[in-house]
Amino acid sequence: MAKDIVEDTVDKLRLDSERLSRQLEFIIEIDKLKQILRQTVLIDKSRQENDAEHSWHLAMMVMILKEYAPEGVRIDRAMKMVLVHDLVEIDAGDTFCYDEKANLDKRDRELKAADRIFNILPQDQAKELRDLWDEFEEGKTVDALFAIAMDRLQPLLHNHYTSGHTWAGKIRKDQVISRMSKVKEGAADLWLVVEEVVKEGLKRGYLKA
Amino acid sequence: MAKDIVEDTVDKLRLDSERLSRQLEFIIEIDKLKQILRQTVLIDKSRQENDAEHSWHLAMMVMILKEYAPEGVRIDRAMKMVLVHDLVEIDAGDTFCYDEKANLDKRDRELKAADRIFNILPQDQAKELRDLWDEFEEGKTVDALFAIAMDRLQPLLHNHYTSGHTWAGKIRKDQVISRMSKVKEGAADLWLVVEEVVKEGLKRGYLKA
Repeated sequence: MAKDIVEDTVDKLRLDSERLSRQLEFIIEIDKLKQILRQTVLIDKSRQENDAEHSWHLAMMVMILKEYAPEGVRIDRAMKMVLVHDLVEIDAGDTFCYDEKANLDKRDRELKAADRIFNILPQDQAKELRDLWDEFEEGKTVDALFAIAMDRLQPLLHNHYTSGHTWAGKIRKDQVISRMSKVKEGAADLWLVVEEVVKEGLKRGYLKA
Repeated sequence: MAKDIVEDTVDKLRLDSERLSRQLEFIIEIDKLKQILRQTVLIDKSRQENDAEHSWHLAMMVMILKEYAPEGVRIDRAMKMVLVHDLVEIDAGDTFCYDEKANLDKRDRELKAADRIFNILPQDQAKELRDLWDEFEEGKTVDALFAIAMDRLQPLLHNHYTSGHTWAGKIRKDQVISRMSKVKEGAADLWLVVEEVVKEGLKRGYLKA
């Protein structure tokens, strides 16, 4: 529905610039990210978190925790990566990281989404954002490794402060440790946070042994 | 309530580093920005927008519209500014820009909020974020002017795509033009967007003449 509104009204805005029209269409399109709900809940447990506010939270973490980033990280690139990393979920939806079945076709769904969403932009910018997303997905550069570490740490912290909400006592310690291994790669000095949260999670029964 | 949870659990995390503890406390504290509702609604009008997702949207606009920024703008600084510009509203609340009475004590409320919220961080980072917020509020540097232009344009676009939701047929054209003058200063080439939206708003009855 939102898409119809956009097409209708972009037309009515009658902008002479095709480039600016596409940029504005993209800006309106990505408003939908505010509707994509994650498994994580807000710290006060009042509701599920959405992808847009999650991405903002990660960008803030990139700013605040940058001293723990690997040598050579370019903070502005890591920040851009976390801002765009979930855009594909506008079409592909949020896939719970511990849902093995849903993760089977996650990559296909997200690639299709990337093709549609980034290409709303003028070609040069479509490429810029697609490259950032590809780099994040591949997770090999230091910028991507740090961005991914933030994306792992944030829901871990949320779980700690919401009585293990998404773990619901059903997720095992080794599953969390395995998923969090990315924190070791992208922000090694923050591994102690993972250890403390997992230790407390076991003690309080949020996690299974 | 959220604050009590934080203090309780940060204590239980038993981190040896006072610095890291304060950084994590700040990251948890700012989760509250996701609960601060704005006058603006999402493009599909399903609900009010919150400050965290609004800030994410502005950061995306900084990325996508940077070619319209004044010469000399440092995009990473403009991006940081939009990410932090509304944090004070955790305590001070959102003040509707056309509510003259509420705007009388806005500055006092926000200064008090800035003192509390930024100072959760270690001193050097508290200063860094406070400086960014002060610069945005003062609106004199090119970085701030561009960031402010994005903060003006985003709700204008939302109004266009939601039948003038926050204008509700009660706001006058000259009020909008006056508020949007910041777009001329911070992104002059986007003034044509303001003109088109206002023209259409008048034609459709979203705005009063």
